[in-house]
Amino acid sequence: MSPMNPRIPCPMNIITDIAAMQQTASRLRREGKTIGVVPTMGYFHEGHLSLMRRARAECEVVIVTLFVNPAQFAPHEDFASYPRDFERDCQLAEAEGVDILFAPTAEAMYPDGYETFVTVENLTQPLCGASRPGHFRGVTTVVAKLFNITQPHRAYFGLKDYQQCKVIQKMVRDLNFDITIVPCPIVREPDGLAMSSRNAYLSPAERQAALALHRALRHAEQMVKAGERDARVVRDAVQAMIAAEPLAWIDYVEVVDAETLQPVEQIQQNTLVALAVKIGRARLIDNTVIDAVR
Amino acid sequence: MSPMNPRIPCPMNIITDIAAMQQTASRLRREGKTIGVVPTMGYFHEGHLSLMRRARAECEVVIVTLFVNPAQFAPHEDFASYPRDFERDCQLAEAEGVDILFAPTAEAMYPDGYETFVTVENLTQPLCGASRPGHFRGVTTVVAKLFNITQPHRAYFGLKDYQQCKVIQKMVRDLNFDITIVPCPIVREPDGLAMSSRNAYLSPAERQAALALHRALRHAEQMVKAGERDARVVRDAVQAMIAAEPLAWIDYVEVVDAETLQPVEQIQQNTLVALAVKIGRARLIDNTVIDAVR
Repeated sequence: MSPMNPRIPCPMNIITDIAAMQQTASRLRREGKTIGVVPTMGYFHEGHLSLMRRARAECEVVIVTLFVNPAQFAPHEDFASYPRDFERDCQLAEAEGVDILFAPTAEAMYPDGYETFVTVENLTQPLCGASRPGHFRGVTTVVAKLFNITQPHRAYFGLKDYQQCKVIQKMVRDLNFDITIVPCPIVREPDGLAMSSRNAYLSPAERQAALALHRALRHAEQMVKAGERDARVVRDAVQAMIAAEPLAWIDYVEVVDAETLQPVEQIQQNTLVALAVKIGRARLIDNTVIDAVR
Repeated sequence: MSPMNPRIPCPMNIITDIAAMQQTASRLRREGKTIGVVPTMGYFHEGHLSLMRRARAECEVVIVTLFVNPAQFAPHEDFASYPRDFERDCQLAEAEGVDILFAPTAEAMYPDGYETFVTVENLTQPLCGASRPGHFRGVTTVVAKLFNITQPHRAYFGLKDYQQCKVIQKMVRDLNFDITIVPCPIVREPDGLAMSSRNAYLSPAERQAALALHRALRHAEQMVKAGERDARVVRDAVQAMIAAEPLAWIDYVEVVDAETLQPVEQIQQNTLVALAVKIGRARLIDNTVIDAVR
């Protein structure tokens, strides 16, 4: 039971029933426990595990939610084929000292006649919102539900999904959720590829091609470090580096204000370079926040 | 300080700051207190007071929220002229033993850049939703915010706003708010007029004309009691009675299923007769639930 030995994990409670999860969360709240939640779609990689570790370090009770949310996939997207491995996910979460894994069914989350949605109107328009209409409505709706069910004090999200972090922070502020959103750094493979469950879709050749994303973002950072301030020049350079990769199909490359997500002309403080690229079946996203003033 | 003597009320705490209210609610929750909330737009009448009494009887802590919510008024509607009397409201709430009156400012509830909305898609389409586009989006959004701020176990709503009750119940179920919605009976003046803050708009002649609403609904009940089951016949009779009143302008008269709010042809169990009528500056609503099976 010692947290010093990860091979003898604490027993993790697996809850699938919404009412049972809610009652447990209410009880923990009454007991004065600090609850941290890590919302996930499962198929855990080091990115997810880093969120669990951060929650474990900061909260008395760690809840991981595992739900592949149909509401955030468009009909033509990869909901059905999204990678799943519940057994392995349980083992990995338990090894991180997670207290509760909450894994509801889609039927319980969206029963017949479901019709309530949470929308963040403006922050969801650019970037991934432009290429995935309805996606963020599905995200904010399910996250609002998961917050009401798990009643966290703190919630952990990875910055690979940068726009998602910003959209959820906005929802939390606007709807007065009494929750602190903790954005956590992107975790990368040793060669630089941002960790993603969708990396599992990549063939070896595609996996190699996917390195162009990270390489192009590093190049953008170097350009700004060398004095370049014209957003279009940086954007074009990133785009050209990725376009040079025959297996890559660019969805978008944008240079935007890191708070408003609106395009900038000049790179100044807090500028986000964000991109989405299709490689084979995988739509991959990555980003970097650049601060030109130092 | 005795609750036996309404002229020596318990001290009521007036809170205008959102963070202060939220911290107070969190503390009350940690102390294991049952919180009841009565969301209002103020200008209290017996209808509001009946909700406060019910909450007082059922909960350890009673919070009344007082906020004239701009988001639920269309630009041409009566937001600016909606009746307000904060001093009197404080006295009335305090006399009912309310613990906390929460009265935030519109600037704090909807700061610059506010952009998050909660929508219930289908239940909001008929009846008042059809004549007041966007109204229920404003209602569900502010109620979600007020729930997150006051963290109630139970929330009290009057059935004069029948569709509002149903829409909020649906939002609570769909978004998994851990809150029991308590719908409370319509409170009427001795002559039958449903209590409403907007009754203050009525001139004496309009006040007299407004009795047609209640009279027509009682007539509908009598028709069904006498055996009438054809929804159209009942609807036409109600409409004719109100149309006979020269000062009344009918917005809608509908006979619908009391759960789905969809029109019915035959009056059976749980049928709602609902109407909205403009009299002078006031748009008045009223309804009755009829059960034809006995």
